[in-house]
Amino acid sequence: MGHEPHSAVELITTKRDGGVLSDSEIDWLIDAYVRGVVADEQMSALAMAVFFRGLEPAELKRWTAAMISSGERLDFSSLSRPTADKHSTGGVGDKITLPLAPLVAACGVAVPQLSGRGLGHTGGTLDKLEAIPGWRAELSNTEMLAQLEDVGAVICAAGSGLAPADKKLYALRDVTGTVESIPLIASSIMSKKIAEGTGALVLDVKVGSGAFMKDVDRAEELARTMVGLGTEAGVTTVALLTDMSAPLGLSAGNALEVAESVEVLAGGGPADVVELTLALAREMLSASGRTDVDPADALGDGRAMDAWRKMIRAQNGDPDAPLPVARETDVVTAERDGVLTALDALAVGVAAWRLGAGRAAKHHSVQAGAGVQLHAKPGDRVRAGQPLLTLHTDTPERFERARHALADAVTIAEADDVATRGLILGRIG
Amino acid sequence: MGHEPHSAVELITTKRDGGVLSDSEIDWLIDAYVRGVVADEQMSALAMAVFFRGLEPAELKRWTAAMISSGERLDFSSLSRPTADKHSTGGVGDKITLPLAPLVAACGVAVPQLSGRGLGHTGGTLDKLEAIPGWRAELSNTEMLAQLEDVGAVICAAGSGLAPADKKLYALRDVTGTVESIPLIASSIMSKKIAEGTGALVLDVKVGSGAFMKDVDRAEELARTMVGLGTEAGVTTVALLTDMSAPLGLSAGNALEVAESVEVLAGGGPADVVELTLALAREMLSASGRTDVDPADALGDGRAMDAWRKMIRAQNGDPDAPLPVARETDVVTAERDGVLTALDALAVGVAAWRLGAGRAAKHHSVQAGAGVQLHAKPGDRVRAGQPLLTLHTDTPERFERARHALADAVTIAEADDVATRGLILGRIG
Repeated sequence: MGHEPHSAVELITTKRDGGVLSDSEIDWLIDAYVRGVVADEQMSALAMAVFFRGLEPAELKRWTAAMISSGERLDFSSLSRPTADKHSTGGVGDKITLPLAPLVAACGVAVPQLSGRGLGHTGGTLDKLEAIPGWRAELSNTEMLAQLEDVGAVICAAGSGLAPADKKLYALRDVTGTVESIPLIASSIMSKKIAEGTGALVLDVKVGSGAFMKDVDRAEELARTMVGLGTEAGVTTVALLTDMSAPLGLSAGNALEVAESVEVLAGGGPADVVELTLALAREMLSASGRTDVDPADALGDGRAMDAWRKMIRAQNGDPDAPLPVARETDVVTAERDGVLTALDALAVGVAAWRLGAGRAAKHHSVQAGAGVQLHAKPGDRVRAGQPLLTLHTDTPERFERARHALADAVTIAEADDVATRGLILGRIG
Repeated sequence: MGHEPHSAVELITTKRDGGVLSDSEIDWLIDAYVRGVVADEQMSALAMAVFFRGLEPAELKRWTAAMISSGERLDFSSLSRPTADKHSTGGVGDKITLPLAPLVAACGVAVPQLSGRGLGHTGGTLDKLEAIPGWRAELSNTEMLAQLEDVGAVICAAGSGLAPADKKLYALRDVTGTVESIPLIASSIMSKKIAEGTGALVLDVKVGSGAFMKDVDRAEELARTMVGLGTEAGVTTVALLTDMSAPLGLSAGNALEVAESVEVLAGGGPADVVELTLALAREMLSASGRTDVDPADALGDGRAMDAWRKMIRAQNGDPDAPLPVARETDVVTAERDGVLTALDALAVGVAAWRLGAGRAAKHHSVQAGAGVQLHAKPGDRVRAGQPLLTLHTDTPERFERARHALADAVTIAEADDVATRGLILGRIG
């Protein structure tokens, strides 16, 4: 370690005291962290300093580039069609990737969606798809490329070769209270997405109780930061700010969300899920130069469903197999007559997690059938005793803790005129 | 780890977001850190959060108490005389402990001085005493107590049993850029000193380029914080703020400082060393209720020297043996006529360190004879070509880097009237 060009302590104190790290310092830092020369306890202290001091735009750009350089970079330029990807910052009931990827593929743009498993109250896309009998998440790069050319859509596990520095840093931030930093979030997401090699990227930045960003200002700052990083790296990048104060759709849980996604692909499904799927599809198509097609047509005429079935089959899944169902259910009813004015997304997410839909630690498994079904959404008129939620789990001893999470989740008011904000709160691009 | 009452991540985010940690959270944190349940990367992130957010007085008191509780607590109540200790926050040429401990002992107050080795540009008291042939730093608690009763003064290595939490935390802070936090500094120093069991404590808080605290306001804040912690723990605590813009005395280096200390004990020595030794001795005596004795008498009549010789002999040292001398010397001369207005403490400290008097890493050894001798002090009139400094080392290839450190250390002005601040800048107690 005597021949290292920089010192971790000096970099930490520079950032701590409000200074700016140079390009060579950032390059060294990320590389030395992957090599183990910068220790976890040094990186976490630096991450906390970044939490307080931020990163200048030039520092952030270099930091992101250094994380990309830590691993391989995929290249889809050999494909016969353009590529577009979507990334959501995570929400409750956010199954949009499932109908969106085949829908966009059906419209002529390839979707290479590298996803993760869930941790905490927001479910993971791979966990959801794994509810489908036979479906496998792991593909080699060659298999992924072949499926993209053939089917046009692939949702699979991100290989360990993409931005390994981010993988290590994210795991560290997760246990050191340094997740909630806009530059660190932005560089984490964008390093993976840029390394993934997509031509266009649409970001769904969630805002509200069930989202990582609780208020619009912070969400907008994150969105602008990510759009800037993508654009500078040559990826056409657009962000939508979307509401996450209530769950998306009528389900939170793995098999439950697959079922709802299939309803959308069949031309039905909850209005908010359809609205967001179409809005994101239009952005992905437009960012790829395909302004001539309307994705609503592909939902209506079955092309999106065809692409879904091909996509699931290509990864060994059986799109016709019955989905797993939880062994036990429990119903939460309305306590009074009135208008449902709030159904808190975070509370529903935590309840679904506690029922077994999510995991508390990486090595835990999830229950395919567990989750929460919604029978009413904010704005709906309800009557006392009417079912509001159905809780699903294989392990009924979990009902009590799930109900505890939901204690203050439901608000029913007298008022007739309820002001709810729209689903799509803004666009940055 | 499933049965831990608190979560490290929750404590980190609480502090990060400006919250206050409860007593039980702090007790758990320090204990769990020692047990390894709170990982280094979590503690360093929390330390960085404390750097930015601080600790409330109640949190700091509890934090210090928890560090004390992590180890043993010494008890000097069986001694026939009161005990007083001194702690310096560290400076260049700060050999005061050497004449001070036997001087105060000669006046009837026992001095249990648990010290450390140096790291960086400030030398360690044990390193200095180890320049004396035969002297050993390690004593058992029983040996220490016997020597305190017999000689009245002991300077020895702090055992690993005192505040082990601090030992672990300090080593962590040292490599994670989290040293410079007033509550963390204060709790580190005071946990060791309170655990050591002294009845009274006098703090010498250094201010200036060669000190940890560069400006008076920060030094005063640190002093007030430490005095508060000591007083609340039942230790009579006083702090002096003293100047560290220039080195103390005329030497920085191990054997060089022992020689200067012996001069002071013999009734001579540089005026500033004598002034500070007497000032600290008076505070220690007064804090122990001995306002009836004047330490200047004990310096003048040889009682302090007698105590020194007994103290050195009790630890196997030979007070009459010749001190080690460095093999090579090099002289820095004045470039012009004028008044020496500044002789930068930090530069001299770094030069002495580079010459071999200090260590860059814990496992390094030090050269007993290496260091810097001063031939003029700020305020002195000098002539071009006159020797200002003599550099000493066993390894002459070090001269160049030492001279490099000293490049801007010396300021010689035309002006006749030079305003220098006094040595003792303030008192808190």
